Amino acid sequence: MQSLPAQVRIVEVGPRDGLQNECVALDIERRLTLIDRLAAAGLASIESGAFVSPRRVPNMAGSVELMQRLQRRAGVRYPCLVPNETGLDAALEAGCDEIAIFAAASGTFSQRNTACSIAESMQRLGVVAARAQAAGLRVRGYLSCIIGCPYEGPVPAATVATLAAELDAMGCYEVSLGDTTGIGTPHAVRALIDSVAARVPPERLAGHFHDTWGMGVANVYAAMLSGVSVFDASVAGLGGCPFAPGASGNVATEDVVYMLEGAGVHTGIDLGRLVDVARWISEQLDRKPASHVARAFKSGKD
Amino acid sequence: MQSLPAQVRIVEVGPRDGLQNECVALDIERRLTLIDRLAAAGLASIESGAFVSPRRVPNMAGSVELMQRLQRRAGVRYPCLVPNETGLDAALEAGCDEIAIFAAASGTFSQRNTACSIAESMQRLGVVAARAQAAGLRVRGYLSCIIGCPYEGPVPAATVATLAAELDAMGCYEVSLGDTTGIGTPHAVRALIDSVAARVPPERLAGHFHDTWGMGVANVYAAMLSGVSVFDASVAGLGGCPFAPGASGNVATEDVVYMLEGAGVHTGIDLGRLVDVARWISEQLDRKPASHVARAFKSGKD
Repeated sequence: MQSLPAQVRIVEVGPRDGLQNECVALDIERRLTLIDRLAAAGLASIESGAFVSPRRVPNMAGSVELMQRLQRRAGVRYPCLVPNETGLDAALEAGCDEIAIFAAASGTFSQRNTACSIAESMQRLGVVAARAQAAGLRVRGYLSCIIGCPYEGPVPAATVATLAAELDAMGCYEVSLGDTTGIGTPHAVRALIDSVAARVPPERLAGHFHDTWGMGVANVYAAMLSGVSVFDASVAGLGGCPFAPGASGNVATEDVVYMLEGAGVHTGIDLGRLVDVARWISEQLDRKPASHVARAFKSGKD
Repeated sequence: MQSLPAQVRIVEVGPRDGLQNECVALDIERRLTLIDRLAAAGLASIESGAFVSPRRVPNMAGSVELMQRLQRRAGVRYPCLVPNETGLDAALEAGCDEIAIFAAASGTFSQRNTACSIAESMQRLGVVAARAQAAGLRVRGYLSCIIGCPYEGPVPAATVATLAAELDAMGCYEVSLGDTTGIGTPHAVRALIDSVAARVPPERLAGHFHDTWGMGVANVYAAMLSGVSVFDASVAGLGGCPFAPGASGNVATEDVVYMLEGAGVHTGIDLGRLVDVARWISEQLDRKPASHVARAFKSGKD
């Protein structure tokens, strides 16, 4: 039986990727509470905001204020998403020490999401990454549509590998491979990771899976078998507006942690406290947690 | 990368294990429609009823009439659950050609579920299996609580292996290993299967997983990596009464089929037709499908 990594790092993306895609916008106060409760549950890397147009992405409005007010805990990282140089200026103003940049492995998705070709996007990101690093910030890279694109269908693994290598070469300390539409299955995920790992070592890769087709946990497990030990996840499976048919968010952090605990893999996360956060944030959004674990877990506090 | 089996057989348990645990009882007419629509979608093994006390298990009442009225399709098997010799008499009366017998790997569960110790249960099942085989029936074995028991907690792998070997020795053509409470995680499932496979070859094992903790699909994938190629699943994830907090049914057939299609594994099942059945049966039960695939799948017919 293959061995699994002894330790896995979870990058909690609920306060950003999750909340951004919910149909209810939360005020800064509750976003701050969410972030701090996640840190208290043991999450050591929490994507906290995005410096994007509040007109296009109203749920992320006020990210500068949020980051300025955030009481940082020792040993916890609070990266924010930065799409361009304007976003980087905001990140610097907000006192960020880590940013995340993002590209898509599909030309059509890149055009629709960032209004430019893949090549133009990579060129812009190179400038952002260089400036950020010169300012002493850590840079994380996201690559979306790694298995399929909602507009173009299947995405070639060679394209994903090439773009991951370019993000790596820009100095991203890690490249998170995102199955944006959640269509990937564990077998396909392993094949893809193995292809990309020929260009970027798996120690510098992360997996970012959505549960749209119910494959999230299985894909995390599969990626672990290919040597990946960092995974993005969203508390309560935030990110799928319950009123959008078929929508589904990131794989739920508590489902991933439960799976890892079952394998004896260390995460440093307190599952009971995490489930409490999942239930609390779901109440704030007037929805139910999307995760199985938040429904099944019996907590003395609830 | 490990290879997966080229072909997987799904044992559809929705009409039995699924419906039995729903809070709405269906009439025989609709149970027959469900079974036939599943067969039309390509399911070649469909657990169709249970010869149990209608007082204890009202949802399975009328299984003799159901089996007598069932229009059997060529190449499709319609096993029924048989707990004891009385049940076997009913199965013979109903014209069954295949039965399933069940034991638990936990003494407390055995007492609560069948009012006898594990040893007594195995002794009774031996008599049922021998009589059934003498009458020309195929016998399938279920072993429940393979990872944990709701009363006793963790269950030793050695107990599971010993009991699986006993069911195998009784002439069960296959032993289905059931994670009854759904607490198993992929790593633990692989370890368990590898232990059992030392006593019963994986070609004669099946995996029976519940999605209570969101691990169903990941556990199927993990068991495949350990050489198992038969899986029980329930259309629409039937089996968890939506009004029972934390309840959850079998892993959904359509989620498993979707995962297998992504790996190029042949099942003979038409996913679109299966999703239509999932949506139809969910309407009959006045609930939503528990599966992600039934929510995400876009069908021309719906």
